[in-house]
Amino acid sequence: MNGSVVSYSLRELIARFGGEVVGDPEVRVSRVATLENAGPETIAFLANPRYLRHLATTKAAAVILSPTERDLAQTARIVHEQPYLYFARVSTLLASPRTPVPGIHTTATVHSEAHVDSSAEIGPYVVIGRGARVGQGSVIGPGATLGENARVGRDCHLHAHVAIYAECLLGDRVIAHAGVVIGADGFGIAFDGDRWVKVPQVGRVRIADDVEIGANTTIDRGAIDDTVIEDGVKLDNQIQIAHNVHIGAHTAIAACTGIAGSVRIGRHCRIGGAVGIAGHVTIADHVEVSGHTSITKSIDKPGVYSGVYPFEPNRDWRRNAVQLRHLAEIAKRVAALEDGLAQIRRSQS
Amino acid sequence: MNGSVVSYSLRELIARFGGEVVGDPEVRVSRVATLENAGPETIAFLANPRYLRHLATTKAAAVILSPTERDLAQTARIVHEQPYLYFARVSTLLASPRTPVPGIHTTATVHSEAHVDSSAEIGPYVVIGRGARVGQGSVIGPGATLGENARVGRDCHLHAHVAIYAECLLGDRVIAHAGVVIGADGFGIAFDGDRWVKVPQVGRVRIADDVEIGANTTIDRGAIDDTVIEDGVKLDNQIQIAHNVHIGAHTAIAACTGIAGSVRIGRHCRIGGAVGIAGHVTIADHVEVSGHTSITKSIDKPGVYSGVYPFEPNRDWRRNAVQLRHLAEIAKRVAALEDGLAQIRRSQS
Amino acid sequence: MNGSVVSYSLRELIARFGGEVVGDPEVRVSRVATLENAGPETIAFLANPRYLRHLATTKAAAVILSPTERDLAQTARIVHEQPYLYFARVSTLLASPRTPVPGIHTTATVHSEAHVDSSAEIGPYVVIGRGARVGQGSVIGPGATLGENARVGRDCHLHAHVAIYAECLLGDRVIAHAGVVIGADGFGIAFDGDRWVKVPQVGRVRIADDVEIGANTTIDRGAIDDTVIEDGVKLDNQIQIAHNVHIGAHTAIAACTGIAGSVRIGRHCRIGGAVGIAGHVTIADHVEVSGHTSITKSIDKPGVYSGVYPFEPNRDWRRNAVQLRHLAEIAKRVAALEDGLAQIRRSQS
Repeated sequence: MNGSVVSYSLRELIARFGGEVVGDPEVRVSRVATLENAGPETIAFLANPRYLRHLATTKAAAVILSPTERDLAQTARIVHEQPYLYFARVSTLLASPRTPVPGIHTTATVHSEAHVDSSAEIGPYVVIGRGARVGQGSVIGPGATLGENARVGRDCHLHAHVAIYAECLLGDRVIAHAGVVIGADGFGIAFDGDRWVKVPQVGRVRIADDVEIGANTTIDRGAIDDTVIEDGVKLDNQIQIAHNVHIGAHTAIAACTGIAGSVRIGRHCRIGGAVGIAGHVTIADHVEVSGHTSITKSIDKPGVYSGVYPFEPNRDWRRNAVQLRHLAEIAKRVAALEDGLAQIRRSQS
Repeated sequence: MNGSVVSYSLRELIARFGGEVVGDPEVRVSRVATLENAGPETIAFLANPRYLRHLATTKAAAVILSPTERDLAQTARIVHEQPYLYFARVSTLLASPRTPVPGIHTTATVHSEAHVDSSAEIGPYVVIGRGARVGQGSVIGPGATLGENARVGRDCHLHAHVAIYAECLLGDRVIAHAGVVIGADGFGIAFDGDRWVKVPQVGRVRIADDVEIGANTTIDRGAIDDTVIEDGVKLDNQIQIAHNVHIGAHTAIAACTGIAGSVRIGRHCRIGGAVGIAGHVTIADHVEVSGHTSITKSIDKPGVYSGVYPFEPNRDWRRNAVQLRHLAEIAKRVAALEDGLAQIRRSQS
Repeated sequence: MNGSVVSYSLRELIARFGGEVVGDPEVRVSRVATLENAGPETIAFLANPRYLRHLATTKAAAVILSPTERDLAQTARIVHEQPYLYFARVSTLLASPRTPVPGIHTTATVHSEAHVDSSAEIGPYVVIGRGARVGQGSVIGPGATLGENARVGRDCHLHAHVAIYAECLLGDRVIAHAGVVIGADGFGIAFDGDRWVKVPQVGRVRIADDVEIGANTTIDRGAIDDTVIEDGVKLDNQIQIAHNVHIGAHTAIAACTGIAGSVRIGRHCRIGGAVGIAGHVTIADHVEVSGHTSITKSIDKPGVYSGVYPFEPNRDWRRNAVQLRHLAEIAKRVAALEDGLAQIRRSQS
């Protein structure tokens, strides 16, 4: 977030990340920018054709383009098959990541039987319970809490007010944004005919390496066995993951999605925002689900799945939606019409 | 969460909870397990036929089954009409619940005019405002805040960072998981033709006994009168309850559901996840709503209600969904066809 | 929230806010109430015809009504075209707003290079980072955190546990309820064919004046440019606003709505609860969207837009919904029937 003073020439960038320079390879860049709001020493990219119109007028020193747009720009450029991925790498190179400041803040409360690596940074008002562990180079933000025996691996970053309940395990390089809750009780209740009886939730949450978890996302502990998030899973904000869900490696899930108990999602899936997945459903690897879709049964083949009510002006929607309640009847009437027509045809032949 | 060393024989369990033992009644169990991942001294259950396949191979010392599956297992077993409820009771018996450690943490900030029972446990960085009360045996987790005159009854457990705004009241045995917010202002705004004018929210939230509230759920204070949650209501994570909602006793609501202002939900309802309920709607007792359904008008009869767009492969969905915008027209055309066919029939007879 | 001892006569109220008194103008009111639960010295209002039945029996000392209902009440009343807006003003007048108690709580952690106005109230366990600023009369609630160079204007109120990440800017009179997260990283990830590469999120969040943000709402920082919330925007609870969203002035958004990256919403829009808006969509000024609608493409004309699956008893829904998957085919069959019928007609003529 601080302006970096380090700069790179395009020649240096392609030496690191590949691609081809068109134009002056000695152009230097020190910051990223959008095409629209670029200035001197910035590098921008074009990945979405919707922003093509900004290419002609951009003030960026350099742009990253796919071969298709190679000749649509005048500025110096790097041509690469995957401009957004390329940009991600350049942006990471130019960013000045926050370095942990080793030590435990004087206001933090760390149990005498907790194990905090000396290179870790423990912020103000952090609570670390008995038997909990924090690994090398991890940063625990203000007010975050680790329950008994919770474990955070190396180079993790828990932002403000993250709550890790007892016994839950995080791997290395896990990022959890502010307000994340890991290991709260799953919604396990049994009805006795009159009232609900709570089922103790004795499983844990196990999160593997390189997982990122968005702000205010919640991941419940398992009822008996564990809730599991595999390597490289990326979770956006305000996602709800219920007890005993299992999410396969490198799956990405957009914001506001809710995943009910015991769902099993495969590897390399892409789940849109505000999706709902019903309990006990299994989803194969490489499945993509459109935003706002409700997945009510298992999906065993890769592919893109959708189920979204198309919006329209309210008046039209009212007129059309009312017929949804007659759809079965309409289908019957169409079948009856087909019979009727066939009959007439027979009678005419 | 800690392995308990207490164990019970099946004979002892049925003496407490009823049911019938098939096999050796002296088999002892000390932990719960799933059928799939059971080990020595564990007791598992079968409630969902989807897991029937694990019954033959389970390593559980004992299982809880319904009479229908009575003879499908070899292991010692308890037969009972409601295996999941039975399991809930056994699991509660075997769990070693956290006992409060009486006292106020040295880092907590408790107003001199607050009333904290000497048996309550007040965690680090807790803030308790003037006139607020915490009852016998309650646990207030790290960083939780109680506004002025807020009241928490007996044997409650507020987890980390729960925020109770001023004047809000919780009964006994209430559990609120991390990140719960109770009593924030409702969304009361009036438009003056140019900008929004805030309507002060002067009501409270009143929560009765035995209510459980999931992580990051929010319950707004009433605009004028109170927002009310009756006895035994169970709320999952990330639920939003707007001002002046009234939820009847023993209703259970799954995660991510949003309930708009002044909604009245009856007793013993079961509301699925990601449901939306529009403002001022009234829902009768014993109503069940499927997940992802939008309830836009009142429901006055018990029953199960649904309105979920069925998902399908994206290509099929596109083809079908586009017709939704023509549904009223299709209905008209079907009616016209019926008229046409009737005319032809008349002309032929 | 405390009973105010100040009271006003109806004569005094209309002198301030306009309208006409019917009945005794010397009637005094000191508190607001609903028609249903009113008592002595209270003033209630009628804006929703659904509550008309309470008008005859209300115990309010006075009511606020529109001209249409002018003669439907016996009690003293104020007649005004916009009863709810009028009520908002009266309620604001009668409310006793919390006055900041200037000073920094002894438990707070304020960086030596932060700038906190001496009239601001900084609560317990607050963390204010290097270069951060808090303006005149602002209240920072318990446990709230301001990252480096974050800025909060005048007369703001951040409630408990609000997290403002580094560099984010709030204008004047901004209210953020408990659990709000502003400036967490947007969901920027690029796929390298095997795993996700994080795209550093180097933009900020800029929030203008008079914005209110509901509990547990999250607003992500921009990926490159900023995420922007203009003047007077009102956001309910548990809303998710992704990176680089731009929300125009005086737009109001109800709870649980999710807005994907780079969406541009106009001024004076009203977005219902649990709405989903897909990435890169643009919405014109004065657009209204019904709750639970999924907006998947841009809207360039003012108006009301909807797309909600109508609920019905589960049995009916099942019967109807299954036909949705045949809708394209039904449409084809109807067209074929029309052809068939036309053919028969031609053959008969």
